[in-house]
Amino acid sequence: MPQGPEEEFTSEMHFTDEIVCELVQVCASDLMVVNAARVSFNRESEELGDKEKGLINFLMKNHHGTPFEHNMFTFRVEAPLFVQREQMRHRIGHSYNEWSGRYAKMDPKFYVPSYVRTQVGGPYDFEEVNGDAANVFRIHLEKTYRALYMEYERALRQDVAKEQARYFLPVSTYTKYFWTCNARSLMHFVGLRNHPNAMFEIAQVAKSAENSLIDHMPETASRYVEHGRIAP
Amino acid sequence: MPQGPEEEFTSEMHFTDEIVCELVQVCASDLMVVNAARVSFNRESEELGDKEKGLINFLMKNHHGTPFEHNMFTFRVEAPLFVQREQMRHRIGHSYNEWSGRYAKMDPKFYVPSYVRTQVGGPYDFEEVNGDAANVFRIHLEKTYRALYMEYERALRQDVAKEQARYFLPVSTYTKYFWTCNARSLMHFVGLRNHPNAMFEIAQVAKSAENSLIDHMPETASRYVEHGRIAP
Amino acid sequence: MPQGPEEEFTSEMHFTDEIVCELVQVCASDLMVVNAARVSFNRESEELGDKEKGLINFLMKNHHGTPFEHNMFTFRVEAPLFVQREQMRHRIGHSYNEWSGRYAKMDPKFYVPSYVRTQVGGPYDFEEVNGDAANVFRIHLEKTYRALYMEYERALRQDVAKEQARYFLPVSTYTKYFWTCNARSLMHFVGLRNHPNAMFEIAQVAKSAENSLIDHMPETASRYVEHGRIAP
Amino acid sequence: MPQGPEEEFTSEMHFTDEIVCELVQVCASDLMVVNAARVSFNRESEELGDKEKGLINFLMKNHHGTPFEHNMFTFRVEAPLFVQREQMRHRIGHSYNEWSGRYAKMDPKFYVPSYVRTQVGGPYDFEEVNGDAANVFRIHLEKTYRALYMEYERALRQDVAKEQARYFLPVSTYTKYFWTCNARSLMHFVGLRNHPNAMFEIAQVAKSAENSLIDHMPETASRYVEHGRIAP
Repeated sequence: MPQGPEEEFTSEMHFTDEIVCELVQVCASDLMVVNAARVSFNRESEELGDKEKGLINFLMKNHHGTPFEHNMFTFRVEAPLFVQREQMRHRIGHSYNEWSGRYAKMDPKFYVPSYVRTQVGGPYDFEEVNGDAANVFRIHLEKTYRALYMEYERALRQDVAKEQARYFLPVSTYTKYFWTCNARSLMHFVGLRNHPNAMFEIAQVAKSAENSLIDHMPETASRYVEHGRIAP
Repeated sequence: MPQGPEEEFTSEMHFTDEIVCELVQVCASDLMVVNAARVSFNRESEELGDKEKGLINFLMKNHHGTPFEHNMFTFRVEAPLFVQREQMRHRIGHSYNEWSGRYAKMDPKFYVPSYVRTQVGGPYDFEEVNGDAANVFRIHLEKTYRALYMEYERALRQDVAKEQARYFLPVSTYTKYFWTCNARSLMHFVGLRNHPNAMFEIAQVAKSAENSLIDHMPETASRYVEHGRIAP
Repeated sequence: MPQGPEEEFTSEMHFTDEIVCELVQVCASDLMVVNAARVSFNRESEELGDKEKGLINFLMKNHHGTPFEHNMFTFRVEAPLFVQREQMRHRIGHSYNEWSGRYAKMDPKFYVPSYVRTQVGGPYDFEEVNGDAANVFRIHLEKTYRALYMEYERALRQDVAKEQARYFLPVSTYTKYFWTCNARSLMHFVGLRNHPNAMFEIAQVAKSAENSLIDHMPETASRYVEHGRIAP
Repeated sequence: MPQGPEEEFTSEMHFTDEIVCELVQVCASDLMVVNAARVSFNRESEELGDKEKGLINFLMKNHHGTPFEHNMFTFRVEAPLFVQREQMRHRIGHSYNEWSGRYAKMDPKFYVPSYVRTQVGGPYDFEEVNGDAANVFRIHLEKTYRALYMEYERALRQDVAKEQARYFLPVSTYTKYFWTCNARSLMHFVGLRNHPNAMFEIAQVAKSAENSLIDHMPETASRYVEHGRIAP
């Protein structure tokens, strides 16, 4: 990779492994689940008593999913592209709007992992790599990221369109997006992504989302865990 | 149709043409549309000024639909089955839970129209029928509904399962359901159903929904009407 | 219900409990499932050997659903409205076009069950009703259907719009529709509707659909049954 | 970026701007559109005559979309990640399975554009860059790609998990995926992506898909273009 003099760097590099999934708006309650289910029987509840909790348990256990759709969670996510690519494979009951490298310059923010791993068996069996080997990997990443962002900025200065200058940027570049889902689609996502087989980095997103479910629909969240984190 | 003595009627008949579509929960704002769109440019707004309004206009005009998905409206609808059948053909971005004739007895509530119409040309050209002809139609409907509900109740008394006793009930029987959508799917529904070609009765649902959009996302609603009620 | 002289009947009544779900076009294979999954590993198979069968089993068992979406089944269904209403609640991965009572006259074809049932416990515990009680129910249905269709035709003769004349028609009136789905959405439908808790009549549709899966994707169908008829 | 001796390269680099979208299976016809629409009127056609063509025109013009859903196209796409990222934002009526960098090593195949462009006005106004400037960009890309793939392979040799070693790989790395859609969702995709505002590279995918529509549903394709490439 051709490298220019150090003074070409115009931006401060930002290396991190923080993944943010912050709740920005929510409209959700356990009681609405109950009333959505009870409309089948032409009945309605005003409080969440034992019967109502029993009903949520019944719905979760028997995979009656639609009563869990009458609610909404919106998150602001900051994560590397390799996380975004996996998350946006979730299509139904999920809405997204994302930072576009066609329209706006990407920031010099890149993923450098604290947790470096090696595969030791099946596709989901990993062991942490520590010490020198992990440090070498991180040092190579950081040097490479600096060089790549310099190439990106140089291409921009030479008036190459943003949508082409970004060809230099790696899948570990950070992006930002709004993500809206409902409790049912959230539980489907969490069931696959807060799971022992899930990629460590997307599990951070899933854990944050699950915490929001616990905060706003505690009864739903408890029964979900109790029945094996399988979305109804 | 076999008729028993009057004393067999155990329920009071309810004839109406009122169609209810009542907002029960909402989380929606024009500003969220702006911020969902601006994340593409890695920018954010805190107030809805002229630039922000211009952006909503741009999105609507150019059919950029996804920024309108980060919000939620839940309605409680009371309408005849022939309205429900048409509404639930709307699949994407719409959630429903409905009164079930398998699990609960249906109420003796039936649709009797004030507005009786005759087709006078193409499939969407109607003229109102007034006077005697309309009255005869309504009288026949009411007599029939009484007889049918009597048959329904008699079958139930003879222990026929609810899911079979209802075979007597007409498509003009009232049902009740929760309906959740977002502004984008709402606009798609309203564009087809608050339209000159739409069936009069479903247009009542669509008008109520559109009023909720006006109340909670006034800028979105104005630009939607301005650009021909075509969902972005 | 007001009744006119017999000569008013212009159509021949058709009472039946036959429910048709006929495959009209299909593009589906087990091999495509394998290759959709193997693209993850940048590999491709040309024949369905033991390894490929093992992979289908793995996908089904571990709920990897997307490889089952690259195929299509289209059915022509003839069923009463109360079946159609339940089926069309299935939204994702399902396409429908249905006979419209707004545009075309409905046929005098109505559901009269051979299998009459009574509820004997929970909502899904039924026992067959035989002999006189069942016959009385069927006789009442047939008499009612005759009277209702007469009312429907009379309203049409008096130029009431088709979309209103049908208010007389019961939910047991037959309709007709095209239904297109893929193996994944088909399995989701079948899992709920060819199930002990499903309504008997919709189970007829589900069984036909499952037979088409068996014919065209035998390996998928076997593993589906083996793993408890839970859609991946 | 740290560089090792040349002999470390174990793979042959492949630089290209070819984007492949090859039809691998299809089940589609104009006649099925007609029959899906005609079921509304309880009618059926056996041939595609003038009346049937007129009906397709009517459906397209008046945005009746559902009759265009009873068909299927499956494509094998080979394209850079920045194309895949944009395509997979299309959620409804689209199915995907993709090469996974978690499970399999990525090939040393990278996008080097013949068509280099600069932005000269609004976000969609570009002019081609020719001569030296374009060559310099391409040379920098190729040198960078070589260095990045070397880093990728070195990390793999040092037993870093594949899902982490790929942090070095750019968004211009080629991936491969199966994509299944129906004519309605295909037309929605093509309307946005074979459009003057679309990114040049995704337009190659959209043009291939549109050619398959022309081949298998010529009447649908003609009316689609005639009515402004707006999906019904």
